Amino acid sequence: MIEPLRYEKETGTLYVLDQTLLPDEERYIAITSMDEMVEAIKSLRVRGAPLLGLAGAYGLYFAVLESEKSPDFWEHLDKQVNVLVNARPTAVNLKKEVNNILMDIPRTAEAYEIAPIVYERILQLENRLRQDDLNLATVGADLLKGKKNILTVCNTGTLATGGIGTALGVIKVKHSRGDLEMAYLCETRPVLQGSRLSAWELVKEGVPHRIITDNTAPYLMSLGKVDAVIVGADRVVRNGDTANKVGTLMLAIAAKYFGIDFYVAAPTSSFDMTLDNGESIVVEERDPMEVLQFRGIRVAPKESQALNYAFDITPSSLISGYITEQGVLRVPFTEVK
Amino acid sequence: MIEPLRYEKETGTLYVLDQTLLPDEERYIAITSMDEMVEAIKSLRVRGAPLLGLAGAYGLYFAVLESEKSPDFWEHLDKQVNVLVNARPTAVNLKKEVNNILMDIPRTAEAYEIAPIVYERILQLENRLRQDDLNLATVGADLLKGKKNILTVCNTGTLATGGIGTALGVIKVKHSRGDLEMAYLCETRPVLQGSRLSAWELVKEGVPHRIITDNTAPYLMSLGKVDAVIVGADRVVRNGDTANKVGTLMLAIAAKYFGIDFYVAAPTSSFDMTLDNGESIVVEERDPMEVLQFRGIRVAPKESQALNYAFDITPSSLISGYITEQGVLRVPFTEVK
Repeated sequence: MIEPLRYEKETGTLYVLDQTLLPDEERYIAITSMDEMVEAIKSLRVRGAPLLGLAGAYGLYFAVLESEKSPDFWEHLDKQVNVLVNARPTAVNLKKEVNNILMDIPRTAEAYEIAPIVYERILQLENRLRQDDLNLATVGADLLKGKKNILTVCNTGTLATGGIGTALGVIKVKHSRGDLEMAYLCETRPVLQGSRLSAWELVKEGVPHRIITDNTAPYLMSLGKVDAVIVGADRVVRNGDTANKVGTLMLAIAAKYFGIDFYVAAPTSSFDMTLDNGESIVVEERDPMEVLQFRGIRVAPKESQALNYAFDITPSSLISGYITEQGVLRVPFTEVK
Repeated sequence: MIEPLRYEKETGTLYVLDQTLLPDEERYIAITSMDEMVEAIKSLRVRGAPLLGLAGAYGLYFAVLESEKSPDFWEHLDKQVNVLVNARPTAVNLKKEVNNILMDIPRTAEAYEIAPIVYERILQLENRLRQDDLNLATVGADLLKGKKNILTVCNTGTLATGGIGTALGVIKVKHSRGDLEMAYLCETRPVLQGSRLSAWELVKEGVPHRIITDNTAPYLMSLGKVDAVIVGADRVVRNGDTANKVGTLMLAIAAKYFGIDFYVAAPTSSFDMTLDNGESIVVEERDPMEVLQFRGIRVAPKESQALNYAFDITPSSLISGYITEQGVLRVPFTEVK
């Protein structure tokens, strides 16, 4: 049982599986404040677009408890929420789930009434994430029936959602149906979510897999070893353009070149209909040290600098379809709210 | 002054700059036998297609000296040469330069006469590599005049050729002409020749550069930051298909998609007219540990396996042209011997 977040109600402590230490060490850190939650989000101890929504909800819960002690509850809370939702800008889920909960709290409510409402919503969200994943993975496994060799990038499993996962969930369901020969995992530089996290999940679940360097993916396609590519999404906008882990654009261009299906697997909670196209998405630049160092060991000369875009934008023209909990969507979208 | 190989005639010792230790440490290892040369080639202490030709020639020299002591000179030498030329299968230069020298040695020559002939040829080869590089880099810099932002992969500089370099040589000459804004270096997983070696050379020569993870390259192109891509080659075959460091195919497909020039820069000594197309090239698979570990530290679960193709094959249809010491070549080739 993989449990990326575990809340202990008696002590008011959220235990977060520190994903930066995987696969070497399965260690939980104890979080009891919003600031600690923001630190855990920024430093990738908790990550994955859907799970960031849940982490954000817990952050909101802590912020509410802290704001109760402030002379002006709402002023304090609004300030804290602003810090929270900007902890990572690219994934829409963080901002969206926090705002969804906030919108349902009447501004006239007494401070002490608010925390229980938020907590109730967190439980609902946890259930919804799990159910969305199951529905999505089933939709994907049906769609990709017979395609036995699947390539993916980053981690889109339980560690990214709390449920069975999105793209990795499809792979798991295909395996359980005997419809998977091999999952190819892009190692996913710079933070190695593929070789560290997805491989760890697939080892736990006994799913056959091979790790490749990211730059190997197009060559693997050219050898005929890949039947379909499935990736997750940090944000899908109105025209279908998709922000996801850097390297996704590379996979989409190569899949198009080789005539291989390329699907985005994401719950509709990762869809952002407030943006018309991908050009409006803020792409997070992270610390260049993630590229220049490797687990704290410098690999490049100390005088050299790096660019570290954490995400890229894949145009909808390269995407075969969108595997969601509501079914397979194609552009133009008409039904996503 | 970067000197990847340095021969000391008095002691019969070849000093090889151990490229696996760069950029942390500039340490030379002493080589006095063919077996040591083969080990240095296999473990990437010396690398780069043109430099492998020279390393092979030194290996041949040691093999000749060792064969002099054998009762059957030619039987012993032929056996040793077979080991030598297969130390790394993808780059054509190793086999080609060794065979070129061998072909010029009359089988009727006395054993003791042969080593001086080989040594003379090595000196000629060193000069030719340097001169080819200079000519090639000038051809490339003329061709790409005004294209100020250049993306490249792997290391194709002095560490790969002994001269100014091929693709990296073009970048250096462009810089010296004031025609370079930025060199973007793919870090080049798994062995990081980009961030370890090319960055080290460009630091030494004061050339502005930024390191990116390999999977970032297509996104960088989509942002309009790349005016041209130049890569080296381990082998160019008759129809123009090119074997080079894994990730080259990815760059070529993405450059085509974004309408960016994609050039192969390689001396004609890296051309192999004995093969019709890329399907006939043996692509070296290297130890999966290069992917699973990072400087000896395991990054993936111990149960996980990896695929490690060291090279890929880029079809000539994706290549704008071939920058050589003889000028810019286009397919179909008519003049390369």
